[in-house]
Amino acid sequence: MTSDLVYLDHNATTPLLPEVVDAMLPYLREHFGNPSSSHGFGLRARNAVAHAREQVAALLGGEPEGVIFTSGGTEASNLAIVGVAESRDRRTGVVTTAIEHPATARPCAWLGSHGRRVTRLGVDREGRVNLDEARAAIDGETALVTIMHSNNETGVLQPVAEVARLAHASGAVVHTDAAQSLGKVPVRVLDLEVDLVTVAGHKLYAPKGVGALYLKQGTPLLPVLLGAGQEHGLRPGTENVASIVGLGAACEAVGRDLEAAAGRMRRLRDRLWDELTAAVPGLALNGHREHRLPNTLSVRFPRASGAAVLAGAPDVAASTGSACHEGLETAPAVILAMGIEPEDALGTVRLTLGRSTTEDEVLRAVGSLARSWRRLVQR
Amino acid sequence: MTSDLVYLDHNATTPLLPEVVDAMLPYLREHFGNPSSSHGFGLRARNAVAHAREQVAALLGGEPEGVIFTSGGTEASNLAIVGVAESRDRRTGVVTTAIEHPATARPCAWLGSHGRRVTRLGVDREGRVNLDEARAAIDGETALVTIMHSNNETGVLQPVAEVARLAHASGAVVHTDAAQSLGKVPVRVLDLEVDLVTVAGHKLYAPKGVGALYLKQGTPLLPVLLGAGQEHGLRPGTENVASIVGLGAACEAVGRDLEAAAGRMRRLRDRLWDELTAAVPGLALNGHREHRLPNTLSVRFPRASGAAVLAGAPDVAASTGSACHEGLETAPAVILAMGIEPEDALGTVRLTLGRSTTEDEVLRAVGSLARSWRRLVQR
Repeated sequence: MTSDLVYLDHNATTPLLPEVVDAMLPYLREHFGNPSSSHGFGLRARNAVAHAREQVAALLGGEPEGVIFTSGGTEASNLAIVGVAESRDRRTGVVTTAIEHPATARPCAWLGSHGRRVTRLGVDREGRVNLDEARAAIDGETALVTIMHSNNETGVLQPVAEVARLAHASGAVVHTDAAQSLGKVPVRVLDLEVDLVTVAGHKLYAPKGVGALYLKQGTPLLPVLLGAGQEHGLRPGTENVASIVGLGAACEAVGRDLEAAAGRMRRLRDRLWDELTAAVPGLALNGHREHRLPNTLSVRFPRASGAAVLAGAPDVAASTGSACHEGLETAPAVILAMGIEPEDALGTVRLTLGRSTTEDEVLRAVGSLARSWRRLVQR
Repeated sequence: MTSDLVYLDHNATTPLLPEVVDAMLPYLREHFGNPSSSHGFGLRARNAVAHAREQVAALLGGEPEGVIFTSGGTEASNLAIVGVAESRDRRTGVVTTAIEHPATARPCAWLGSHGRRVTRLGVDREGRVNLDEARAAIDGETALVTIMHSNNETGVLQPVAEVARLAHASGAVVHTDAAQSLGKVPVRVLDLEVDLVTVAGHKLYAPKGVGALYLKQGTPLLPVLLGAGQEHGLRPGTENVASIVGLGAACEAVGRDLEAAAGRMRRLRDRLWDELTAAVPGLALNGHREHRLPNTLSVRFPRASGAAVLAGAPDVAASTGSACHEGLETAPAVILAMGIEPEDALGTVRLTLGRSTTEDEVLRAVGSLARSWRRLVQR
């Protein structure tokens, strides 16, 4: 049963906060109107969407008018990348990184097979994008630079503001996929100097199936999906009112105690590392020790595959790769991109904590993972 | 307050059935896993999505494997139209109709501005697509024929099976937007002989922000959004589990008593027409009297605009055009396409009943609308 499981897979998806569900329920029950309708049912729905727009903007330190609601992070990144590239066809270059989520990597690859020059910046041994490579890649032909705010596998925070400054100096538009960062660390559009930000609801205690693209005023963008005129004509389809309300409530909730929650998660995450490394000699950390999300611990177990370690610890719910595209047991591409040997990379387990993770859960997970590993290496 | 309003705008959006909300709640609360995760939380979510796939397929009389979940009807139609056209680039023709929803009309227009030959079939005075025009337009160059199952404004049922037979004889792929029909009349993929069907959750008592594209096995299709490998690689992004569960539950619920519910709505709808036409001499019907959704009544008030009639009947929630794209008071394009004079078309009010509409509500609406109209014409 799932109730006995220690859930350490918050980078795959988060539980909804109870206050998020409570905020949504009236819009799944009595307030069911279509925001485009001019009668009272429509007005009620329209006001709810407008309020959520303010809540999302507040978490980003941006303007409500800049928030375009989408069906999630994947659609937001597709809209940002294809939408900017299509609107700037006199510049042919796209600069991205070697460690992006498929929601960024695949639209970039598609542009590459449709006449664009796509450059993928490498990362160092600690998983951070190389600024010298960025400097060399970005030029007056660059239409768009897209760099994730933090990596989903390692939690490593990327030098977004530094890359954005380089990009803007060349007249490029800058997008960052902040799906994993929001609600864990501050993501402020003015500090980052970015033009577009991807928001994914289900990574920050809001429901699945809703997200947003933040768009700085004046940024060129064409819609990817076509239809009626919702979301300033940039994203058609009847607004997902209840889930948008949930996303707004989640943004307000996580913003309220961002530092305190991050501190709690960081202390527990570091406790998890301390206990686990004591129990598993040779355990290695994936990614930068400091520039990292407070909830994320990516480790490499020595002489065992991460999948085998997790299979032997059935009371721990965690991941060996990105939960969005698991399948065959191949080493996670993000870890390989850091220059880790494939054999070592296969030992990777990603343990990601949440706001409700307890010390007891952390200690249970350590015991279970360490026992599983010992059984494997003592065979 | 919305509670005093008579809601006759079910073609804009429907309330969720209580059993739909009940089915969703566990997936907004305890069962929050990501279907891509290999642990118990993931399995639970994966099973729920698989069950919903069966429920949606059952309503359509199709195979569960053919169901691709999307963020709604707009995305489903975009995927069908652009996805088929992009995968069949040796055939340049697209045939559609003059009365499609923007979710179909705009992707077709986009294809038209990107090298495709787009033909729009006209409709007769009763709002039905002209089969002779279809016969003339469809040829060996036609990649795709897209024709709505019923019109959102008039409720007029279109000759989909007849057009599909013509299209298949020429080797074209056939898509139908059944957003307005599902849950009101039978929509069976085998009877219709169509290859793709658009499903919109919020038109059939499921939540907003979820829909599906039904895809007959073997139909060529490329994805429109790019990312991870969900939905057979045709629609990326973490599955909207709770809403997908809601869509499945709604499909099962509306399928259970389709005929009985349609009969009830038809009787009330006809009562609405009888009473209204008695109270408003000169009231005219938009669309075919028989080939029509059982819940839809589109009328033209004489010597008054529909917007003015509704403004004077604030206890009736209804629409003058499609709720998805209301704005300036211009005559509804669908009514104009039927050959109605613009001045007359401006009198249009769309009254659309739902499963919970009562006789008392119908009679209250008649009284209110008739009083409003009389005040306008007696000025």
